[in-house]
Amino acid sequence: MITLTSDFGPGPFVGLMKGVILGICPQVRLVDLSHSVPAQNLRAGAMVLEQALGVFGPGAIHLAVVDPGVGTARRPICLAALSMLFVGPDNGLFTPVLLADARARAYLLQNKKFFREKVSATFHGRDIFAPVAAHLACGLDPAELGPVVPDPIRLSWQVAKEENGELVGQVVGADSFGNLSTNLGRELVEAFLSGRRARVTLGDITVTGISRTYGPREPGRIMALFNSLDRLELAVSHGDLGKRLGLDPDDLHGLRVTVSILPES
Amino acid sequence: MITLTSDFGPGPFVGLMKGVILGICPQVRLVDLSHSVPAQNLRAGAMVLEQALGVFGPGAIHLAVVDPGVGTARRPICLAALSMLFVGPDNGLFTPVLLADARARAYLLQNKKFFREKVSATFHGRDIFAPVAAHLACGLDPAELGPVVPDPIRLSWQVAKEENGELVGQVVGADSFGNLSTNLGRELVEAFLSGRRARVTLGDITVTGISRTYGPREPGRIMALFNSLDRLELAVSHGDLGKRLGLDPDDLHGLRVTVSILPES
Amino acid sequence: MITLTSDFGPGPFVGLMKGVILGICPQVRLVDLSHSVPAQNLRAGAMVLEQALGVFGPGAIHLAVVDPGVGTARRPICLAALSMLFVGPDNGLFTPVLLADARARAYLLQNKKFFREKVSATFHGRDIFAPVAAHLACGLDPAELGPVVPDPIRLSWQVAKEENGELVGQVVGADSFGNLSTNLGRELVEAFLSGRRARVTLGDITVTGISRTYGPREPGRIMALFNSLDRLELAVSHGDLGKRLGLDPDDLHGLRVTVSILPES
Repeated sequence: MITLTSDFGPGPFVGLMKGVILGICPQVRLVDLSHSVPAQNLRAGAMVLEQALGVFGPGAIHLAVVDPGVGTARRPICLAALSMLFVGPDNGLFTPVLLADARARAYLLQNKKFFREKVSATFHGRDIFAPVAAHLACGLDPAELGPVVPDPIRLSWQVAKEENGELVGQVVGADSFGNLSTNLGRELVEAFLSGRRARVTLGDITVTGISRTYGPREPGRIMALFNSLDRLELAVSHGDLGKRLGLDPDDLHGLRVTVSILPES
Repeated sequence: MITLTSDFGPGPFVGLMKGVILGICPQVRLVDLSHSVPAQNLRAGAMVLEQALGVFGPGAIHLAVVDPGVGTARRPICLAALSMLFVGPDNGLFTPVLLADARARAYLLQNKKFFREKVSATFHGRDIFAPVAAHLACGLDPAELGPVVPDPIRLSWQVAKEENGELVGQVVGADSFGNLSTNLGRELVEAFLSGRRARVTLGDITVTGISRTYGPREPGRIMALFNSLDRLELAVSHGDLGKRLGLDPDDLHGLRVTVSILPES
Repeated sequence: MITLTSDFGPGPFVGLMKGVILGICPQVRLVDLSHSVPAQNLRAGAMVLEQALGVFGPGAIHLAVVDPGVGTARRPICLAALSMLFVGPDNGLFTPVLLADARARAYLLQNKKFFREKVSATFHGRDIFAPVAAHLACGLDPAELGPVVPDPIRLSWQVAKEENGELVGQVVGADSFGNLSTNLGRELVEAFLSGRRARVTLGDITVTGISRTYGPREPGRIMALFNSLDRLELAVSHGDLGKRLGLDPDDLHGLRVTVSILPES
């Protein structure tokens, strides 16, 4: 199985990659993960892949193309990690994979035998990454692609931590419902709270308690809850928190979110 | 075959559901019906399913997730109807199925054996509905899911009718071309007209006659015709009627549309 | 394999066509090429198909529905060309196929045996083109569809040419990154330049030299390069040229682009 992730949007580029893949390995299963990664946003692409790690099983091949440096010296790679393979540009897109598997091994895509015959300077998704992924799906050993890359690129990846008696994390993205997800994981938060009630802050917004679901609060009230990735999320019931804060999705990333203990009254 | 319908938009949630399904039932065929149902709009989701009823054959499994109450007490169900299966929340999303098959039988999704091991409070599409649909696709008897639900929820579903010598119906949605579809079915309208010419009204717009196609009228002129679901539709040739009326898609639903007999001159 | 191209957007129409296809030919492979062709824009649809010609191999069936004249007298056709089949309306959508294969042969879709039982006036994608494509995928000889159409419709298709010592071409579209592609092919341009440096103009914008990639220029500077179709493209590094020119995508098509020789200083 090959999953596909990109910032190509709804145009024909994804279909062209699929045509190349099926020409090489007709029986492979194709699953679109997301092609609505914001253009050239490596961090957003990395987060999509991070979500896939827990869902797809051993043997899956993840083709990911968010590639602002296409045609420059940035290296094309295949990463063998978590019993899966990841094919795409070496630009930090695979940071969560590298963090999740200390024994991840990267190979340079060097052997042109596995590329399309003619490689354009602007569409390596079609000309390099898609054919390589197809050959891998049909049984190619990644070691045949090229030499090991000892230092695949990692993005700085902020990790939530305890500071001065409170947990400090960051907003890492907004979903299409306007909910803001953070890097504050459930285990960290629940261990910190030890059964006490939370006070969650984002700018001048303060939320008391962590809800179990989107449902019980009144519409329009801001709440905190754990999302499907078990990370703390801030949401407006039946509303769009990003819009309410008056911020573009691009400006939300990195906003400081804290969790402290609510004093008993 | 499993079809997928949701309000998840173009992000990774749909791909994650597919990953779960293929992990359980690798050989199943997956077909996206629509993931652009307006967020939390049960009626729009129900209309997508209604369109699928005449196209997909016996044995199809329809996974539908428009789920504003995820994580609350709303019941997850599987509906056996029309020789097909429908999996999703019991919130009215399956109203057209219940209306189309009086012998529809609903089962509560209770047996956790068919869920993902860890069920989040916010993403039952991935954790409950997708794995259940996958098990059904690989042969599970729906009766093993849980007890029968005797009273699955139905939305009020307006039905066009004759009143004071005219047919009265409602706008039920707008497509991406800005055409407004109604609940006035062809059979009802043609029986009412009995060969006489129609006058169709929507607010202060009056259209004379029902066209056979989008083509023959001059561009920009509003026309009435029967759409691909054999329902009366109002459209502007080569234009967008929703925009022309100055209304958001959300405000179009429920607008009164009447058909009367055009007096002979 | 059947590819699907349309202006249907993200709604359920595409899924309904797939349901019809799989009901007739369950084992066929389906690949979406693009469903975000601007509504009723034949030229944009034709350009999507043109891109597919080099990627999909012999035997592929391309189902394409951009069909402003649905329900009128325009002919439904199947085109046998380039060892592939193309199914859709005869309205010029297949112009690049006709230009690429002088021996292309068109058949009228006349034999109702291969249509859905009930054909609507507004959704021939579901009722005529999808079932015909499905029957072809399962082995139907196109000659059984109906008589040969001797004169399938062609759009005027501007071709770049040399005029008064410079190359004159046109903008033919904008991609989702805001890059403007032209009809100036690499071979034509490189033969014209014969190793000399290029000066590329679009309105009052002048670009010196043709870059190899998106990368090396400073962000915000306009550059010219060859895109993945080997056509000259104008782009802003990490930006959106369409927006910068203050033009809607619709107004970009046909803008004059010239390539001349940069005088040596």
